[in-house]
Amino acid sequence: MAQPIRVRFEALRDFMDRAFRRAGLPDADARTVATLMAEAELQGSDGHGAIRLAPYLKRIREGGVNKTPDIRVEREKPAMALLNGDNGMGHLVMKRAAELAVAKARTAGVAWVGAHLSNHAGPASLYARMCLPHDMIGLYLAVGNANHLPPWGGLTMLLSTNPIACAIPAGEEPPVVLDMATTVAAYGKVKARAQRGEAMPEGWMVDRAGKPLTDPKRADEGFLLPIGGYKGYGLALVIGLLAGTLNGAAMGKDVIDFNADFHSVGNTGQAILAIDPAAFGDLDEFKAAVDVVVRDLRASERMPGVERIWLPGEQSHEKRQASLARGMPLPPQLKATLDNIAADLGIAPVEVIA
Amino acid sequence: MAQPIRVRFEALRDFMDRAFRRAGLPDADARTVATLMAEAELQGSDGHGAIRLAPYLKRIREGGVNKTPDIRVEREKPAMALLNGDNGMGHLVMKRAAELAVAKARTAGVAWVGAHLSNHAGPASLYARMCLPHDMIGLYLAVGNANHLPPWGGLTMLLSTNPIACAIPAGEEPPVVLDMATTVAAYGKVKARAQRGEAMPEGWMVDRAGKPLTDPKRADEGFLLPIGGYKGYGLALVIGLLAGTLNGAAMGKDVIDFNADFHSVGNTGQAILAIDPAAFGDLDEFKAAVDVVVRDLRASERMPGVERIWLPGEQSHEKRQASLARGMPLPPQLKATLDNIAADLGIAPVEVIA
Repeated sequence: MAQPIRVRFEALRDFMDRAFRRAGLPDADARTVATLMAEAELQGSDGHGAIRLAPYLKRIREGGVNKTPDIRVEREKPAMALLNGDNGMGHLVMKRAAELAVAKARTAGVAWVGAHLSNHAGPASLYARMCLPHDMIGLYLAVGNANHLPPWGGLTMLLSTNPIACAIPAGEEPPVVLDMATTVAAYGKVKARAQRGEAMPEGWMVDRAGKPLTDPKRADEGFLLPIGGYKGYGLALVIGLLAGTLNGAAMGKDVIDFNADFHSVGNTGQAILAIDPAAFGDLDEFKAAVDVVVRDLRASERMPGVERIWLPGEQSHEKRQASLARGMPLPPQLKATLDNIAADLGIAPVEVIA
Repeated sequence: MAQPIRVRFEALRDFMDRAFRRAGLPDADARTVATLMAEAELQGSDGHGAIRLAPYLKRIREGGVNKTPDIRVEREKPAMALLNGDNGMGHLVMKRAAELAVAKARTAGVAWVGAHLSNHAGPASLYARMCLPHDMIGLYLAVGNANHLPPWGGLTMLLSTNPIACAIPAGEEPPVVLDMATTVAAYGKVKARAQRGEAMPEGWMVDRAGKPLTDPKRADEGFLLPIGGYKGYGLALVIGLLAGTLNGAAMGKDVIDFNADFHSVGNTGQAILAIDPAAFGDLDEFKAAVDVVVRDLRASERMPGVERIWLPGEQSHEKRQASLARGMPLPPQLKATLDNIAADLGIAPVEVIA
């Protein structure tokens, strides 16, 4: 097997920056989107990193995204705002949302910022994590950009895998960062199994008769299963109403499949809640208390064969540290895609580690 | 089989009111707690209704609850407050929290009220629902009052079934009300199976080797499983940090099993978030949009054998309507327990429908 290709964070960011600028995004916006996508790759969210560059560029090319959006506050109260994303790249909209939520929470204690006319913004945890450097808790909700889920007992795909992320600062420990879809498996995992020719475990998908579906090549004949059955269906629905309907964004049958339609305005909805722990008590005491919970959980007696108890976000944290030190692995197929993009756009290719 | 015993909402409320007054709660507080417990029964949350009267009275008798608490705002900002429950009945603390969250959200758009030194407060949805008459969305989080869950892969029970509830107003449709524990099955369901001598399905519990445990009589030898495996573990943890740790309330190893210890102060933590949809846009348009989503889901094509697609909270809604019209069923065993309480306290027994 060939030596794995590795790329530094800065090199991947700069390459995507070049691509977005060439595609027509203003310099600062290209930089922001490229940085957030490289950060997704850094934390191991590889389904939301460089692999999205080609479909994002296609959407920009086909007019499905506004290259020069006027992202603006449409409604505002002391602890909330509604952003009109003006159909800009979701990364730009939700970075603005997170910054605004943090600023308002500094005064109000807690603040919620929702968005409509946004677009796919990458991994949920990116935006929840934006609260951490401000010593705040971040909670992020989004309507997914394709419906893969029927209501419980149903066959009509009216719901997406609507994700939730929550980032909670700790003291000496890494922050607790939960980032999860409300389905047992994300659709990307199904596609990965199909590519590798591997069966799926029972419990990921069912067919139209409700029977387990384990052949990922037959994924079109079935549905993803929500976590906890009807509970996950309820979670996906509630997240969709809060991140979509509340903001006047698409939800239910109005959600457009962004993998199939590159020119329609998706009207994606997302929301972020920032909570300032310093409003509730002493910040350092709070962080120390989170450390205690984290350490107690990690020190739990383990089931046979379990080597380590992980906290949510801990594996991403370790991937980030390792990738910053040694660069990130870049699958050969993805490297080839990025090289094709470079050739098409006439920009320098991504610089890999020699 | 004997004719089922039925009781009217008012009769059950008044009986519990008498019991709490006799036990030493001030009149208004006895009325509030009794009303909320009867409402729990009304919506079919029978694990949180009259069945809790005996253990609540025991806790009051043994000094585990403060009969005359000074429930007070300890910290406050425009969009948040931290309540000190002064170890009063949780119902009193969280009713106050919901009212305060609604009042603050009216001005701030969104508001979060947390509590420490609270106690078990019954079903999560009771408090999320308190936002509905004010045309607001309610989100409720709580630390459960006994640890039944180890971290994923672990054996040490450091987490509870930490519930989440969300109530969203609709227009002509019943509100969407999700109320769920973060485990596949609630512990009460396991106890019910044991009483009936029935096996549990695989997926509810595992033993210490991680193998399925289906005999509910062996529940002590195993653990409840979180929904979606490590995802439910992450949800339970995050809810616990937000409802417990953030408020300076018990979380992790500090949680006291309220079914085993009736005299220690539990320092229960809960939180409620109120969101005013009118801050985000036109209220009627929002409610109409929720109606559309609800109706589309209900009209979904169905799997073979599925008679109806349910929305979260719809079954509780129908139970409430039916129970208001015809009274609530009261299991004979529970009726006997309530009669014993009446005799012990020297109060009139619960009046049943002749």
